[in-house]
Amino acid sequence: MPRLVMKFGGTSVANVDRIKNVARHVKREVEAGYQVAVVVSAMSGKTNELVAWCKEAAPLYDLAEYDTVVAAGEQVTSGLLAIVLTAMGIKARSWQGWQVPIVTDESHSVARIADIPSANLDAAFAAGEVAVISGFQGVTRESGRIATLGRGGSDTSAVAVAAAIRAERCDIYTDVDGVYTTDPRIVPKARRLDKVGFEEMLEMASLGSKVLQVRSVELSMIHGVRTYVRSSFDDPDNPQSGTLICDEEEIVEKQVVTGIAFSKDEAQVSVRAVADKPGVAAAIFGPLAEANINVDMIVQNVSSDGATTDITFTCPGADLERARHVLMDAREAVGFKALETASDVVKVSCIGVGMRSHAGVAAKAFKALADKGINIRAITTSEIKFSVLIDAAYTELAARTLHTLYGLDKAA
Amino acid sequence: MPRLVMKFGGTSVANVDRIKNVARHVKREVEAGYQVAVVVSAMSGKTNELVAWCKEAAPLYDLAEYDTVVAAGEQVTSGLLAIVLTAMGIKARSWQGWQVPIVTDESHSVARIADIPSANLDAAFAAGEVAVISGFQGVTRESGRIATLGRGGSDTSAVAVAAAIRAERCDIYTDVDGVYTTDPRIVPKARRLDKVGFEEMLEMASLGSKVLQVRSVELSMIHGVRTYVRSSFDDPDNPQSGTLICDEEEIVEKQVVTGIAFSKDEAQVSVRAVADKPGVAAAIFGPLAEANINVDMIVQNVSSDGATTDITFTCPGADLERARHVLMDAREAVGFKALETASDVVKVSCIGVGMRSHAGVAAKAFKALADKGINIRAITTSEIKFSVLIDAAYTELAARTLHTLYGLDKAA
Repeated sequence: MPRLVMKFGGTSVANVDRIKNVARHVKREVEAGYQVAVVVSAMSGKTNELVAWCKEAAPLYDLAEYDTVVAAGEQVTSGLLAIVLTAMGIKARSWQGWQVPIVTDESHSVARIADIPSANLDAAFAAGEVAVISGFQGVTRESGRIATLGRGGSDTSAVAVAAAIRAERCDIYTDVDGVYTTDPRIVPKARRLDKVGFEEMLEMASLGSKVLQVRSVELSMIHGVRTYVRSSFDDPDNPQSGTLICDEEEIVEKQVVTGIAFSKDEAQVSVRAVADKPGVAAAIFGPLAEANINVDMIVQNVSSDGATTDITFTCPGADLERARHVLMDAREAVGFKALETASDVVKVSCIGVGMRSHAGVAAKAFKALADKGINIRAITTSEIKFSVLIDAAYTELAARTLHTLYGLDKAA
Repeated sequence: MPRLVMKFGGTSVANVDRIKNVARHVKREVEAGYQVAVVVSAMSGKTNELVAWCKEAAPLYDLAEYDTVVAAGEQVTSGLLAIVLTAMGIKARSWQGWQVPIVTDESHSVARIADIPSANLDAAFAAGEVAVISGFQGVTRESGRIATLGRGGSDTSAVAVAAAIRAERCDIYTDVDGVYTTDPRIVPKARRLDKVGFEEMLEMASLGSKVLQVRSVELSMIHGVRTYVRSSFDDPDNPQSGTLICDEEEIVEKQVVTGIAFSKDEAQVSVRAVADKPGVAAAIFGPLAEANINVDMIVQNVSSDGATTDITFTCPGADLERARHVLMDAREAVGFKALETASDVVKVSCIGVGMRSHAGVAAKAFKALADKGINIRAITTSEIKFSVLIDAAYTELAARTLHTLYGLDKAA
């Protein structure tokens, strides 16, 4: 029998009524002939309550104990869903991370899954049971403690379970009905994509799309887990379509650009009049790396006088003040004239595997933006995406311009 | 190093502030040189919330899943207490039932502890750690599922852990400061006992005292675990005395009567004019036993005519209606004339190991109650206690009379 993983997030299991709705989705797939593993998050709000108690207990709380406390949230949901399913006449039982087991490394609160032996789940399926698995949690390999996977961990659990049990598909039920060409709140003409390639989705998640966590997309790409993003607010008896994240080969009609992502959490730093000599980049970026500041776009201009240069880079907005301090401390070693920063900037990225085979995709964008009077502060490109840094005020204009430019607008 | 178990109930860990107070009690004992295991309940109110969700999920919920859901409450408390202790500089870690492990039978929601291998806790103590153990929960031996121990389960967990680690004592912190000669709300002259024998405490718990659950007292008696009932509302730096439950041999000044207990949850059934012949008792009590109705006191009077007799018994008030139905169904087989019932009755019991060596202890009580005009409906006696069933209206008068009679009143 084919196997299916169904994952439901916090808003999809917010209360017992919503959990009963989830059970109806599960029933549909059981009746369709699937062996089903369901992965659930904590009821929305519960994790926040548990985290708040940990902070109240001690601002610098022990991370292994934090994991023990917050993992209780998923335990409650998995037990409740198993109760509902059993009462509906569907054989089911709950599985905690230590029972499956979902084996992790020892990095409490940000643990990575090391292994999911499938023997227990195989036996459960053979017994005709739905396996209701607590997401977000596992058990550490060495010490046998409860571990959690960090932000978006339940998506990662679902994809990892799907890989372990060789599921036909991993359905991620969420509060949106799929992946869009871009954020519909910013571009009203955005439309839902039927299919997105793994690599494209990975770029979109990395560059600001919040539908799926980067780690879960990485994992689905590595293991080739076809992942279907769909809405948990559908009528369980008449579900609508979502977006399938799959191998590029499965996508027949390839667009040059598939989607446009934004990241507003960006800050720009310009280091002015640095000596234009070997080693200066290392003098700037070495200390930033040591301070664990993630530098993204880097632009270096050749100077007019041939003796000095300007170096511009971006980093997460939250790190801007620290970056400034690190550079001022390194001022003597670097030897720059001035430091300029800006935080009212946005990074707009266009993603599409079609760029591999089409030249001049980015150049078209630069011209279109220039025609609208939008100044580009920095540019980065890679094989399947390019990003431009612009003033935040132009976000909507830039997004709509590019969305139309690449033929992504939905039919009127 | 001597070992100590400290158990804190729901009101003692009701919020993070109260948990911090618990940590100060633990700190005191660690500094006094004990290797400490702390057993905690869920924060008060949390278990009720989780149980309510289970009932909402399905009125006839799966018991194994119910256990999974409600055990999450203790998991949260143990993690939070470990966080607080660690932040105070005391090495500590939390232990869930499956980690210790606290091995149980398969009777979900009313599981009995089968075994507590001490190797893991021994290693934790050797590493200088306080072991913070989730009470009320264990892991089933066969299926490896989470199991809970039923009402008062955390007391049972504490005593069982104390036996397993050969603790010098098991301290039960509660919202009262010890065991009293009787309920102070009914007899204002009641006083706290310094020591109570295991058997006496077992009778007191069985006969209506609510300080400790019967199962935990049984367990402490079987394993000889000295159990100290004390208040969690004391100043942790200046704790007051409580009541030690210990072997009779440890008690130097033995009273004839140690305590007086009540049970209001009683009902009386009189079967009138039954044929006075062999087998009639079996005809009455056989069907009641089959219906799982717990019969307590039984009185059979010799009839005046020598041909019929009256049989009176008590059962839990909640079972009265069922008992009536069972007997009416068996009326033909038993052959009785009428059935009379009463539920406004109370069972008053006097308990004391001194009764073993003193004759006429109960007789004194019968006379004292008669002098006050209190009619005795039924009597049962055993080696160390006697109980009388009286009209509920006389509860206070009877209790105060007996309390004074046996010299239990505190000094004015």
